[in-house]
Amino acid sequence: MRIRKKPWAENEFNTNANYIKEPQEFKGKWRDFFGNENPIHIEIGCGKGQFITTMSKIYTDINYIAIERQSMVIASALKKGREKNVGKNLAFFSADVENLKNFFEAAEVKRIYINFCDPWPNKKKWAKRRLTHKNFLKIYEEIFSEKGEVFFKTDNRILFEFSLNEFEARENWKMKNISLDLHNSEFQGNVMTEYEEKFSGRGMPIFRLEADFYNSLNTMAKK
Amino acid sequence: MRIRKKPWAENEFNTNANYIKEPQEFKGKWRDFFGNENPIHIEIGCGKGQFITTMSKIYTDINYIAIERQSMVIASALKKGREKNVGKNLAFFSADVENLKNFFEAAEVKRIYINFCDPWPNKKKWAKRRLTHKNFLKIYEEIFSEKGEVFFKTDNRILFEFSLNEFEARENWKMKNISLDLHNSEFQGNVMTEYEEKFSGRGMPIFRLEADFYNSLNTMAKK
Repeated sequence: MRIRKKPWAENEFNTNANYIKEPQEFKGKWRDFFGNENPIHIEIGCGKGQFITTMSKIYTDINYIAIERQSMVIASALKKGREKNVGKNLAFFSADVENLKNFFEAAEVKRIYINFCDPWPNKKKWAKRRLTHKNFLKIYEEIFSEKGEVFFKTDNRILFEFSLNEFEARENWKMKNISLDLHNSEFQGNVMTEYEEKFSGRGMPIFRLEADFYNSLNTMAKK
Repeated sequence: MRIRKKPWAENEFNTNANYIKEPQEFKGKWRDFFGNENPIHIEIGCGKGQFITTMSKIYTDINYIAIERQSMVIASALKKGREKNVGKNLAFFSADVENLKNFFEAAEVKRIYINFCDPWPNKKKWAKRRLTHKNFLKIYEEIFSEKGEVFFKTDNRILFEFSLNEFEARENWKMKNISLDLHNSEFQGNVMTEYEEKFSGRGMPIFRLEADFYNSLNTMAKK
Protein backbone atom coordinates (compact mmCIF):
# COMPACT_ATOMS: atom_id res chain seq x y z
CA MET A 1 0.00 0.00 0.00
CA ARG A 2 1.33 3.40 -0.95
CA ILE A 3 0.67 5.80 1.85
CA ARG A 4 -0.34 9.35 1.10
CA LYS A 5 2.18 11.92 2.19
CA LYS A 6 0.92 14.01 5.05
CA PRO A 7 1.85 17.69 4.76
CA TRP A 8 1.93 18.08 8.56
CA ALA A 9 4.21 15.08 9.10
CA GLU A 10 7.49 16.97 8.78
CA ASN A 11 6.45 19.41 11.46
CA GLU A 12 5.49 16.49 13.75
CA PHE A 13 8.92 14.89 13.25
CA ASN A 14 10.64 18.22 14.02
CA THR A 15 8.67 19.25 17.07
CA ASN A 16 7.37 16.08 18.78
CA ALA A 17 9.53 15.44 21.84
CA ASN A 18 8.65 11.73 21.84
CA TYR A 19 10.14 11.21 18.38
CA ILE A 20 13.70 10.01 17.93
CA LYS A 21 15.40 10.79 14.67
CA GLU A 22 18.61 8.89 15.25
CA PRO A 23 17.67 5.88 17.39
CA GLN A 24 20.98 4.09 16.76
CA GLU A 25 22.61 6.71 18.98
CA PHE A 26 20.76 5.29 21.95
CA LYS A 27 21.82 1.69 21.48
CA GLY A 28 22.92 0.54 24.92
CA LYS A 29 21.87 3.90 26.38
CA TRP A 30 18.11 3.69 26.59
CA ARG A 31 18.20 3.87 30.36
CA ASP A 32 19.97 7.21 30.03
CA PHE A 33 17.41 8.33 27.49
CA PHE A 34 14.49 7.54 29.79
CA GLY A 35 16.38 8.64 32.88
CA ASN A 36 15.42 5.60 34.94
CA GLU A 37 15.92 1.85 35.32
CA ASN A 38 12.37 0.84 34.40
CA PRO A 39 11.91 -2.14 32.06
CA ILE A 40 11.74 -1.39 28.35
CA HIS A 41 8.87 -2.81 26.29
CA ILE A 42 8.76 -2.23 22.54
CA GLU A 43 6.02 -2.55 19.96
CA ILE A 44 7.14 -3.48 16.49
CA GLY A 45 4.73 -2.17 13.91
CA CYS A 46 2.91 0.31 16.13
CA GLY A 47 0.67 1.56 13.32
CA LYS A 48 -1.29 4.63 14.32
CA GLY A 49 -0.29 4.14 17.94
CA GLN A 50 -3.53 3.59 19.84
CA PHE A 51 -2.17 0.54 21.67
CA ILE A 52 1.19 1.91 22.74
CA THR A 53 -0.02 5.39 23.65
CA THR A 54 -2.73 3.86 25.85
CA MET A 55 -0.29 1.43 27.45
CA SER A 56 2.20 4.20 28.22
CA LYS A 57 -0.46 6.13 30.10
CA ILE A 58 -1.67 3.10 32.09
CA TYR A 59 1.74 1.65 32.96
CA THR A 60 3.82 4.68 33.81
CA ASP A 61 6.57 2.55 35.37
CA ILE A 62 7.36 0.92 32.03
CA ASN A 63 9.36 2.59 29.27
CA TYR A 64 7.78 2.05 25.88
CA ILE A 65 9.34 2.31 22.46
CA ALA A 66 7.07 2.25 19.40
CA ILE A 67 8.68 1.23 16.15
CA GLU A 68 7.06 1.52 12.75
CA ARG A 69 8.57 1.08 9.32
CA GLN A 70 6.37 3.54 7.47
CA SER A 71 7.17 7.11 8.38
CA MET A 72 3.77 8.48 7.33
CA VAL A 73 2.12 5.96 9.66
CA ILE A 74 4.34 6.81 12.59
CA ALA A 75 3.55 10.46 11.96
CA SER A 76 -0.08 9.61 12.82
CA ALA A 77 1.06 7.80 15.96
CA LEU A 78 3.10 10.84 16.98
CA LYS A 79 0.12 13.10 16.45
CA LYS A 80 -2.05 10.78 18.54
CA GLY A 81 0.57 10.70 21.29
CA ARG A 82 0.76 14.49 21.35
CA GLU A 83 -3.02 14.86 21.48
CA LYS A 84 -3.23 12.30 24.31
CA ASN A 85 -0.44 14.12 26.12
CA VAL A 86 1.70 11.01 26.59
CA GLY A 87 4.58 11.16 29.04
CA LYS A 88 8.33 10.78 28.77
CA ASN A 89 8.02 7.00 29.11
CA LEU A 90 7.18 6.66 25.42
CA ALA A 91 9.51 7.05 22.46
CA PHE A 92 8.84 6.54 18.76
CA PHE A 93 11.18 5.84 15.93
CA SER A 94 10.96 4.62 12.36
CA ALA A 95 12.90 1.49 11.39
CA ASP A 96 12.74 -1.97 9.88
CA VAL A 97 12.46 -4.85 12.35
CA GLU A 98 15.26 -6.60 10.50
CA ASN A 99 17.61 -3.93 11.82
CA LEU A 100 16.51 -4.19 15.44
CA LYS A 101 20.02 -5.05 16.56
CA ASN A 102 21.21 -1.64 15.39
CA PHE A 103 19.11 -0.02 18.08
CA PHE A 104 19.31 -2.29 21.11
CA GLU A 105 22.07 -3.92 23.09
CA ALA A 106 21.51 -7.45 24.33
CA ALA A 107 19.14 -7.53 27.31
CA GLU A 108 17.99 -3.91 26.93
CA VAL A 109 14.47 -4.97 25.94
CA LYS A 110 12.29 -7.11 28.21
CA ARG A 111 9.14 -7.45 26.14
CA ILE A 112 8.15 -7.17 22.48
CA TYR A 113 4.57 -6.54 21.41
CA ILE A 114 3.51 -7.64 17.94
CA ASN A 115 -0.05 -6.60 17.19
CA PHE A 116 -1.87 -7.44 13.97
CA CYS A 117 1.23 -7.50 11.80
CA ASP A 118 0.93 -8.16 8.09
CA PRO A 119 -0.09 -11.85 7.80
CA TRP A 120 1.28 -12.36 4.29
CA PRO A 121 -1.60 -14.79 3.85
CA ASN A 122 -1.64 -17.80 1.59
CA LYS A 123 1.72 -16.95 0.14
CA LYS A 124 4.19 -19.54 1.24
CA LYS A 125 7.13 -17.81 -0.37
CA TRP A 126 6.39 -14.73 1.71
CA ALA A 127 6.22 -16.56 5.02
CA LYS A 128 9.72 -15.23 5.73
CA ARG A 129 8.25 -11.76 6.03
CA ARG A 130 5.93 -12.73 8.88
CA LEU A 131 7.18 -11.21 12.13
CA THR A 132 6.93 -14.60 13.85
CA HIS A 133 9.01 -16.40 11.23
CA LYS A 134 11.96 -18.19 12.83
CA ASN A 135 14.38 -15.70 11.28
CA PHE A 136 12.67 -12.92 13.24
CA LEU A 137 12.51 -15.06 16.38
CA LYS A 138 16.29 -15.37 16.10
CA ILE A 139 16.57 -11.58 16.08
CA TYR A 140 14.38 -11.34 19.18
CA GLU A 141 16.48 -14.01 20.89
CA GLU A 142 19.61 -11.95 20.30
CA ILE A 143 17.92 -8.82 21.58
CA PHE A 144 16.68 -10.59 24.70
CA SER A 145 19.98 -12.39 25.26
CA GLU A 146 19.03 -14.10 28.55
CA LYS A 147 15.33 -13.65 29.00
CA GLY A 148 12.42 -11.88 27.38
CA GLU A 149 8.88 -12.25 26.14
CA VAL A 150 6.82 -11.69 23.03
CA PHE A 151 3.13 -10.77 23.33
CA PHE A 152 1.44 -11.45 20.03
CA LYS A 153 -2.08 -10.73 18.76
CA THR A 154 -3.66 -11.25 15.38
CA ASP A 155 -7.04 -11.77 13.78
CA ASN A 156 -5.50 -13.96 11.08
CA ARG A 157 -5.93 -17.67 11.74
CA ILE A 158 -3.32 -18.73 9.21
CA LEU A 159 -0.75 -16.39 10.74
CA PHE A 160 -1.61 -17.54 14.25
CA GLU A 161 -1.33 -21.21 13.34
CA PHE A 162 2.00 -20.47 11.66
CA SER A 163 3.18 -18.59 14.76
CA LEU A 164 2.25 -21.39 17.17
CA ASN A 165 4.33 -23.78 15.10
CA GLU A 166 7.26 -21.36 14.74
CA PHE A 167 7.55 -20.67 18.47
CA GLU A 168 7.13 -24.37 19.24
CA ALA A 169 9.82 -25.43 16.80
CA ARG A 170 12.46 -23.12 18.34
CA GLU A 171 14.38 -24.06 21.43
CA ASN A 172 14.05 -22.09 24.64
CA TRP A 173 10.61 -20.63 24.02
CA LYS A 174 7.59 -21.53 26.09
CA MET A 175 4.15 -20.22 25.20
CA LYS A 176 1.44 -19.44 27.69
CA ASN A 177 -2.00 -17.83 27.87
CA ILE A 178 -2.75 -18.99 24.34
CA SER A 179 -6.18 -17.69 23.39
CA LEU A 180 -8.21 -18.57 20.30
CA ASP A 181 -10.90 -16.02 21.08
CA LEU A 182 -9.44 -13.26 23.22
CA HIS A 183 -12.56 -11.15 23.48
CA ASN A 184 -14.58 -14.08 24.81
CA SER A 185 -11.89 -15.22 27.22
CA GLU A 186 -11.14 -14.44 30.82
CA PHE A 187 -8.14 -12.32 29.86
CA GLN A 188 -8.18 -9.04 31.75
CA GLY A 189 -6.82 -5.64 30.79
CA ASN A 190 -6.61 -6.07 27.04
CA VAL A 191 -5.73 -2.78 25.32
CA MET A 192 -7.02 -2.72 21.78
CA THR A 193 -5.36 -1.45 18.64
CA GLU A 194 -7.35 0.61 16.13
CA TYR A 195 -7.54 -2.41 13.87
CA GLU A 196 -8.61 -4.75 16.67
CA GLU A 197 -11.44 -2.44 17.68
CA LYS A 198 -12.80 -2.37 14.16
CA PHE A 199 -12.27 -6.03 13.43
CA SER A 200 -13.44 -7.62 16.67
CA GLY A 201 -16.57 -5.48 16.49
CA ARG A 202 -17.59 -7.67 13.56
CA GLY A 203 -17.57 -10.70 15.86
CA MET A 204 -14.45 -12.33 14.43
CA PRO A 205 -12.13 -13.99 16.97
CA ILE A 206 -8.86 -12.43 18.00
CA PHE A 207 -5.95 -14.82 18.61
CA ARG A 208 -3.30 -14.10 21.22
CA LEU A 209 -0.29 -15.75 22.81
CA GLU A 210 2.57 -14.94 25.12
CA ALA A 211 5.93 -16.57 24.45
CA ASP A 212 8.65 -16.58 27.08
CA PHE A 213 12.25 -16.85 25.97
CA TYR A 214 14.88 -18.24 28.29
CA ASN A 215 18.45 -18.68 27.24
CA SER A 216 18.75 -21.94 29.10
CA LEU A 217 15.97 -24.50 29.28
CA ASN A 218 17.20 -25.36 32.77
CA THR A 219 16.13 -21.99 34.08
CA MET A 220 12.62 -22.26 32.70
CA ALA A 221 9.82 -21.92 35.20
CA LYS A 222 7.59 -24.94 35.00
CA LYS A 223 4.15 -25.49 36.37
CA MET B 1 -26.13 -39.53 27.76
CA ARG B 2 -27.73 -42.86 28.55
CA ILE B 3 -27.04 -45.26 25.76
CA ARG B 4 -29.72 -47.68 24.66
CA LYS B 5 -28.87 -51.31 25.27
CA LYS B 6 -28.30 -53.19 22.05
CA PRO B 7 -29.75 -56.69 22.06
CA TRP B 8 -27.08 -57.97 19.68
CA ALA B 9 -24.18 -56.54 21.74
CA GLU B 10 -23.71 -59.59 23.95
CA ASN B 11 -23.32 -61.82 20.95
CA GLU B 12 -20.74 -59.39 19.48
CA PHE B 13 -18.72 -59.47 22.70
CA ASN B 14 -18.83 -63.27 22.75
CA THR B 15 -17.97 -63.96 19.15
CA ASN B 16 -15.88 -61.06 17.84
CA ALA B 17 -12.25 -62.18 17.69
CA ASN B 18 -11.00 -58.57 17.90
CA TYR B 19 -12.63 -58.04 21.28
CA ILE B 20 -10.69 -58.52 24.49
CA LYS B 21 -12.67 -59.24 27.61
CA GLU B 22 -9.79 -59.20 30.09
CA PRO B 23 -7.29 -56.68 28.75
CA GLN B 24 -5.35 -56.48 32.02
CA GLU B 25 -4.10 -60.00 31.25
CA PHE B 26 -2.12 -58.61 28.35
CA LYS B 27 -0.32 -55.89 30.25
CA GLY B 28 3.31 -56.17 29.17
CA LYS B 29 2.37 -58.96 26.73
CA TRP B 30 0.77 -57.10 23.83
CA ARG B 31 3.57 -58.16 21.51
CA ASP B 32 2.66 -61.77 22.26
CA PHE B 33 -0.99 -60.99 21.68
CA PHE B 34 -0.32 -59.49 18.25
CA GLY B 35 2.41 -62.00 17.48
CA ASN B 36 4.88 -59.42 16.17
CA GLU B 37 7.09 -56.51 17.18
CA ASN B 38 5.15 -53.80 15.34
CA PRO B 39 4.52 -50.50 17.15
CA ILE B 40 1.33 -50.22 19.17
CA HIS B 41 -0.96 -47.23 18.63
CA ILE B 42 -4.05 -46.81 20.74
CA GLU B 43 -7.17 -44.70 20.39
CA ILE B 44 -8.80 -43.61 23.61
CA GLY B 45 -12.48 -43.01 23.09
CA CYS B 46 -12.83 -44.85 19.80
CA GLY B 47 -16.58 -44.25 19.58
CA LYS B 48 -18.19 -46.23 16.80
CA GLY B 49 -14.80 -47.10 15.40
CA GLN B 50 -14.67 -45.57 11.93
CA PHE B 51 -11.26 -43.99 12.51
CA ILE B 52 -9.46 -46.95 14.04
CA THR B 53 -10.96 -49.60 11.75
CA THR B 54 -9.92 -47.55 8.72
CA MET B 55 -6.44 -46.93 10.11
CA SER B 56 -5.93 -50.62 10.83
CA LYS B 57 -6.70 -51.51 7.23
CA ILE B 58 -4.41 -48.82 5.77
CA TYR B 59 -1.45 -49.33 8.11
CA THR B 60 -1.17 -53.06 8.45
CA ASP B 61 2.30 -52.85 10.01
CA ILE B 62 0.91 -51.05 13.07
CA ASN B 63 -0.94 -52.77 15.90
CA TYR B 64 -4.00 -50.81 16.96
CA ILE B 65 -5.92 -50.95 20.19
CA ALA B 66 -9.25 -49.17 20.42
CA ILE B 67 -10.46 -48.27 23.89
CA GLU B 68 -13.92 -47.01 24.74
CA ARG B 69 -15.56 -46.55 28.10
CA GLN B 70 -19.12 -47.24 27.03
CA SER B 71 -19.68 -50.87 26.23
CA MET B 72 -22.74 -50.26 24.04
CA VAL B 73 -20.63 -47.88 21.94
CA ILE B 74 -17.74 -50.29 21.58
CA ALA B 75 -20.27 -52.92 20.53
CA SER B 76 -21.00 -50.73 17.48
CA ALA B 77 -17.28 -50.41 16.79
CA LEU B 78 -16.90 -54.19 16.98
CA LYS B 79 -19.77 -54.65 14.55
CA LYS B 80 -18.20 -52.14 12.18
CA GLY B 81 -14.84 -53.90 12.43
CA ARG B 82 -16.43 -57.25 11.67
CA GLU B 83 -18.33 -55.88 8.68
CA LYS B 84 -15.16 -54.24 7.34
CA ASN B 85 -13.28 -57.48 7.88
CA VAL B 86 -10.47 -55.89 9.89
CA GLY B 87 -7.31 -57.90 10.47
CA LYS B 88 -5.53 -59.22 13.53
CA ASN B 89 -3.71 -55.91 13.98
CA LEU B 90 -6.73 -54.39 15.73
CA ALA B 91 -7.98 -55.09 19.22
CA PHE B 92 -10.84 -53.53 21.16
CA PHE B 93 -11.50 -53.32 24.83
CA SER B 94 -13.71 -51.36 27.15
CA ALA B 95 -12.07 -49.33 29.93
CA ASP B 96 -11.70 -45.94 31.57
CA VAL B 97 -8.69 -43.90 30.47
CA GLU B 98 -7.91 -43.25 34.11
CA ASN B 99 -7.01 -46.92 34.43
CA LEU B 100 -4.72 -47.03 31.40
CA LYS B 101 -1.79 -48.15 33.53
CA ASN B 102 -3.64 -51.34 34.38
CA PHE B 103 -3.39 -52.41 30.74
CA PHE B 104 0.01 -51.26 29.53
CA GLU B 105 3.57 -51.54 30.72
CA ALA B 106 5.82 -48.53 30.36
CA ALA B 107 6.95 -48.08 26.73
CA GLU B 108 4.46 -50.57 25.30
CA VAL B 109 2.49 -47.84 23.52
CA LYS B 110 4.09 -45.52 20.97
CA ARG B 111 1.17 -43.30 19.99
CA ILE B 112 -2.16 -42.26 21.48
CA TYR B 113 -4.98 -40.92 19.33
CA ILE B 114 -7.58 -38.71 20.96
CA ASN B 115 -10.33 -37.81 18.53
CA PHE B 116 -13.23 -35.52 19.38
CA CYS B 117 -13.33 -36.38 23.04
CA ASP B 118 -15.94 -34.82 25.29
CA PRO B 119 -14.97 -31.13 25.55
CA TRP B 120 -16.71 -30.50 28.89
CA PRO B 121 -17.30 -27.00 27.57
CA ASN B 122 -17.67 -23.86 29.66
CA LYS B 123 -17.49 -25.81 32.86
CA LYS B 124 -14.28 -24.94 34.59
CA LYS B 125 -14.85 -27.40 37.40
CA TRP B 126 -15.06 -30.20 34.87
CA ALA B 127 -11.83 -29.29 33.08
CA LYS B 128 -10.22 -32.20 34.94
CA ARG B 129 -12.29 -34.58 32.87
CA ARG B 130 -10.85 -33.36 29.59
CA LEU B 131 -8.51 -35.98 28.15
CA THR B 132 -5.79 -33.34 27.66
CA HIS B 133 -5.93 -32.14 31.26
CA LYS B 134 -2.50 -32.32 32.88
CA ASN B 135 -3.61 -35.20 35.09
CA PHE B 136 -4.24 -37.27 31.95
CA LEU B 137 -1.00 -36.06 30.35
CA LYS B 138 0.77 -37.46 33.41
CA ILE B 139 -0.84 -40.85 32.76
CA TYR B 140 0.30 -40.75 29.12
CA GLU B 141 3.81 -39.82 30.26
CA GLU B 142 3.96 -42.88 32.48
CA ILE B 143 2.66 -45.10 29.71
CA PHE B 144 5.19 -43.72 27.24
CA SER B 145 8.03 -43.80 29.77
CA GLU B 146 10.80 -42.66 27.38
CA LYS B 147 9.14 -41.45 24.25
CA GLY B 148 5.72 -41.27 22.66
CA GLU B 149 3.25 -39.06 20.89
CA VAL B 150 -0.32 -37.89 21.17
CA PHE B 151 -2.30 -37.07 18.03
CA PHE B 152 -5.28 -34.95 18.98
CA LYS B 153 -8.27 -33.68 16.98
CA THR B 154 -11.32 -31.74 18.03
CA ASP B 155 -13.90 -29.37 16.64
CA ASN B 156 -14.18 -27.57 19.96
CA ARG B 157 -12.20 -24.35 20.10
CA ILE B 158 -12.34 -24.05 23.87
CA LEU B 159 -11.02 -27.57 24.30
CA PHE B 160 -8.29 -27.01 21.72
CA GLU B 161 -7.15 -23.77 23.34
CA PHE B 162 -7.14 -25.55 26.71
CA SER B 163 -5.11 -28.41 25.22
CA LEU B 164 -2.48 -26.11 23.67
CA ASN B 165 -1.92 -24.54 27.06
CA GLU B 166 -1.89 -27.87 28.91
CA PHE B 167 0.73 -29.46 26.65
CA GLU B 168 2.80 -26.27 26.69
CA ALA B 169 2.75 -26.03 30.47
CA ARG B 170 4.12 -29.57 30.93
CA GLU B 171 7.78 -30.35 30.68
CA ASN B 172 9.12 -32.63 27.96
CA TRP B 173 6.33 -32.18 25.45
CA LYS B 174 6.83 -30.49 22.10
CA MET B 175 3.90 -29.84 19.80
CA LYS B 176 4.10 -29.84 16.04
CA ASN B 177 1.83 -29.69 13.00
CA ILE B 178 -0.65 -27.56 14.90
CA SER B 179 -3.61 -26.89 12.64
CA LEU B 180 -6.49 -24.50 13.26
CA ASP B 181 -8.38 -25.64 10.17
CA LEU B 182 -7.33 -29.16 9.30
CA HIS B 183 -9.61 -29.60 6.31
CA ASN B 184 -8.26 -26.48 4.65
CA SER B 185 -4.64 -27.27 5.43
CA GLU B 186 -1.93 -29.12 3.55
CA PHE B 187 -2.18 -32.09 5.90
CA GLN B 188 -2.28 -35.33 3.92
CA GLY B 189 -3.89 -38.63 4.76
CA ASN B 190 -6.40 -37.52 7.37
CA VAL B 191 -8.74 -40.35 8.33
CA MET B 192 -12.04 -39.01 9.56
CA THR B 193 -14.16 -40.15 12.47
CA GLU B 194 -17.94 -40.42 12.09
CA TYR B 195 -18.35 -37.22 14.05
CA GLU B 196 -15.71 -35.37 12.05
CA GLU B 197 -17.35 -36.31 8.76
CA LYS B 198 -20.67 -34.93 9.93
CA PHE B 199 -19.30 -31.87 11.63
CA SER B 200 -16.74 -30.70 9.10
CA GLY B 201 -19.36 -31.07 6.39
CA ARG B 202 -21.04 -28.06 7.94
CA GLY B 203 -17.93 -25.99 7.22
CA MET B 204 -16.75 -25.68 10.82
CA PRO B 205 -12.99 -25.88 11.35
CA ILE B 206 -11.33 -28.97 12.80
CA PHE B 207 -8.38 -28.37 15.13
CA ARG B 208 -5.48 -30.79 15.31
CA LEU B 209 -2.08 -31.11 16.94
CA GLU B 210 0.66 -33.64 17.44
CA ALA B 211 2.54 -33.60 20.74
CA ASP B 212 5.83 -35.45 21.15
CA PHE B 213 6.85 -36.60 24.57
CA TYR B 214 10.50 -37.15 25.41
CA ASN B 215 11.64 -38.15 28.83
CA SER B 216 14.68 -35.89 28.64
CA LEU B 217 14.61 -32.49 27.01
CA ASN B 218 18.20 -33.12 25.95
CA THR B 219 17.14 -35.83 23.58
CA MET B 220 14.52 -33.70 21.86
CA ALA B 221 14.88 -33.33 18.14
CA LYS B 222 15.04 -29.67 17.26
CA LYS B 223 14.63 -27.98 13.94
